Amino acid sequence: MASIDVCYSPELLHLYDLKGKAVVAVDILRATSTMVTAFAHGARDIFPVMELEECRAFSGGGCLTAAERNGIKAEGFDLGNSPFSYMNGAVDGRSIAITTTNGTRAIRLSEAAEEVIVGAFLNLKTVARHLSELQLDVVVVCAGWKGQFNLEDTLFAGALVDCLQQDFTSENDATLASLHLYQAAKTDVFNFLRQSSHVRRLENLGIHEDVQFCLQHNLYEVLPVWRQDRLIDLAVVQS
Amino acid sequence: MASIDVCYSPELLHLYDLKGKAVVAVDILRATSTMVTAFAHGARDIFPVMELEECRAFSGGGCLTAAERNGIKAEGFDLGNSPFSYMNGAVDGRSIAITTTNGTRAIRLSEAAEEVIVGAFLNLKTVARHLSELQLDVVVVCAGWKGQFNLEDTLFAGALVDCLQQDFTSENDATLASLHLYQAAKTDVFNFLRQSSHVRRLENLGIHEDVQFCLQHNLYEVLPVWRQDRLIDLAVVQS
Repeated sequence: MASIDVCYSPELLHLYDLKGKAVVAVDILRATSTMVTAFAHGARDIFPVMELEECRAFSGGGCLTAAERNGIKAEGFDLGNSPFSYMNGAVDGRSIAITTTNGTRAIRLSEAAEEVIVGAFLNLKTVARHLSELQLDVVVVCAGWKGQFNLEDTLFAGALVDCLQQDFTSENDATLASLHLYQAAKTDVFNFLRQSSHVRRLENLGIHEDVQFCLQHNLYEVLPVWRQDRLIDLAVVQS
Repeated sequence: MASIDVCYSPELLHLYDLKGKAVVAVDILRATSTMVTAFAHGARDIFPVMELEECRAFSGGGCLTAAERNGIKAEGFDLGNSPFSYMNGAVDGRSIAITTTNGTRAIRLSEAAEEVIVGAFLNLKTVARHLSELQLDVVVVCAGWKGQFNLEDTLFAGALVDCLQQDFTSENDATLASLHLYQAAKTDVFNFLRQSSHVRRLENLGIHEDVQFCLQHNLYEVLPVWRQDRLIDLAVVQS
């Protein structure tokens, strides 16, 4: 039986052997939620990059650029990190290069894995179904906040474990803790998270609606996966 | 108001500024529980060291040596890492040099702090009372298992936050998560931990009794703190 582990920070990733495994990279507030939203609204592909300058180099040639640092849209880019700015035709048919404080880093540091999938509450069931089909060992890589543990990515990890516990074994304590926390939170994830550091950070920035949006479960059936140098939506490819 | 943060692994310690703060180093199974037990049974001082060779160098001159790797007593040392071997006069009045897989590392990597305290369920209230008196910002440093998150150290962190939440603010999500997990576990910590990786590891080694012993709350009123190059029991000094 395949196993599911949880890694609470990119800073702990060197302790995990990703070879031959599937990684689910998650940054609920907001990078991976936003990527899922972008694909749901027709984005063709997404180039997650680590540095602002790398991202800027994609501008021109029809590629949109998106950048966020410390919760705020970086100056001189087409888009920030709010899922709402990826709706209403803004990204339909377009390529997007994106860099964020935590999320794009978690994705790029996971490239050694056999399969890298972008997960969010918004596409939870689609990700779980894909993992059940793959039957590879899974590592959920939480983006955290600047290397630190965060609660919202942990709750997503717990939700995914909750979906998969019939078919997967668990080998680490982070997996158990995530499941316990999700079970305590799931009747009202938003209220459970109200005390958390990043929700307070975003509420201070006036992004209350983004938080509520990103906590919705199974809004979209998209499946962003890493192929060569970019993310594509495997749900579109397979349909 | 002073704050209390939790660090889930020595591998994340570079993200915390320890200067001017109090660290509580914890390795419930079993290093810090064993050190607390040793002081309760009359140990004069304890030299926590990181390497086996460093520890061996303390032998002779009346100093006992203790070493554990991967849950097992290392060959050629006086003592292992079971609290039971520190009772019945074995360490009364003696100095002990000790090295363990995780716990001694957590202590030594925290030396930049203003005060380093060794915590365990066994001396929970004594540690909490000392922190309330100090009124320094606190970082609970969980030893984990070879850098990975573990559940028993996290539950101790949650128990300490539970004791201190009236007098301390919390600034990070690890603190919140630890408190939630302890609240879920506290009616029966032993059963809550039965699924955890390290408890299973120790039960495979036949150390069931050690686990039950280490989960007892407030058995001893000892207060091991770091002074210059060693741990001493501040409760003895102050009495």
